[in-house]
Amino acid sequence: MERSRALELVKKQLTDKRYMHTLGVTETAIQLANRYGADVQKAELAAIFHDYAKFRPKEEMKQILINEREDERLLAFHHELWHAPAGAVLVHREAGIEDKDILSAIRWHTTGKPGMTLLEKIIYLADYIEPGRAFPVVEEVRAIAKQSLDAAVLAAVKNSILFLMSKKQPVFPVTMDTYNDLIQNGDDG
Amino acid sequence: MERSRALELVKKQLTDKRYMHTLGVTETAIQLANRYGADVQKAELAAIFHDYAKFRPKEEMKQILINEREDERLLAFHHELWHAPAGAVLVHREAGIEDKDILSAIRWHTTGKPGMTLLEKIIYLADYIEPGRAFPVVEEVRAIAKQSLDAAVLAAVKNSILFLMSKKQPVFPVTMDTYNDLIQNGDDG
Repeated sequence: MERSRALELVKKQLTDKRYMHTLGVTETAIQLANRYGADVQKAELAAIFHDYAKFRPKEEMKQILINEREDERLLAFHHELWHAPAGAVLVHREAGIEDKDILSAIRWHTTGKPGMTLLEKIIYLADYIEPGRAFPVVEEVRAIAKQSLDAAVLAAVKNSILFLMSKKQPVFPVTMDTYNDLIQNGDDG
Repeated sequence: MERSRALELVKKQLTDKRYMHTLGVTETAIQLANRYGADVQKAELAAIFHDYAKFRPKEEMKQILINEREDERLLAFHHELWHAPAGAVLVHREAGIEDKDILSAIRWHTTGKPGMTLLEKIIYLADYIEPGRAFPVVEEVRAIAKQSLDAAVLAAVKNSILFLMSKKQPVFPVTMDTYNDLIQNGDDG
């Protein structure tokens, strides 16, 4: 799919602010794909569509997770986690994207997962460090991203867990599994 | 079993330093049992025996975990986690303790688990705050333990996770599940 067509489809689904975020993720994902030797076109499309389901009604997302037999634990966690797996389904169904690498990168962009592919890591990280992000430590993770993809993803996952714990929020188990996987098997664990 | 007989059995299994730790855990567990209305005799015995397997050979503990079909994930994690489930088996087999509440408190004293019983919480916490412990935040957790058992266990679990992450160590998934359970279901989550 052409970039312009993909952006047109996504723009209708998002607020202006979220659309700007999507543009930031897209540029960052392209940079990372070039830097780490991933398929640039796949990175671009995955980034454009990564938040496609962000503003869908909770009930619609919930029903998709149930119908598609997604990890049941998601339903007991915050609905913020639902738009990624629901998005993968809707991007396939409504935008006609069939590439499994792209859909998988959309699916795991919020929780991460153990054994992430190169493209999954790039979209996860691009979402965390795109230029519109402005929270403590983001500069640090941007700097690490210039040296090592695994180390940057680990820093992002770790900071996400620490942030949730500092807010007395639960941490989705797959995110902890992702941290453990990167510590035990990452290039820079 | 009499306290003196239990101590005699345990002393043979431990170094002097670990035996002193065990005495500290025992006194703390008795205090907590009195404070929170648990069975004081069970708390005493569980505390005395909690580190029974601490110095068993790794290979022996590993074989016990395999034979008893314990959580397979334990084998991929640090052997420091093995003495608790292996200890529950050995305390039953060698010391003749048959009480399931006691054995379960021994089994879960290192990782914690979601839905801990009163006795499991007491042994977990006593192990963390006994008078011989001297690490940052222990005083804080001791203070919380005078107000709320759940809040103190949560603080101990949370600090354990943060400590491991600060050392770039993996975190056993059941420990994260314990944190999530206390956040979502605890008296003070």
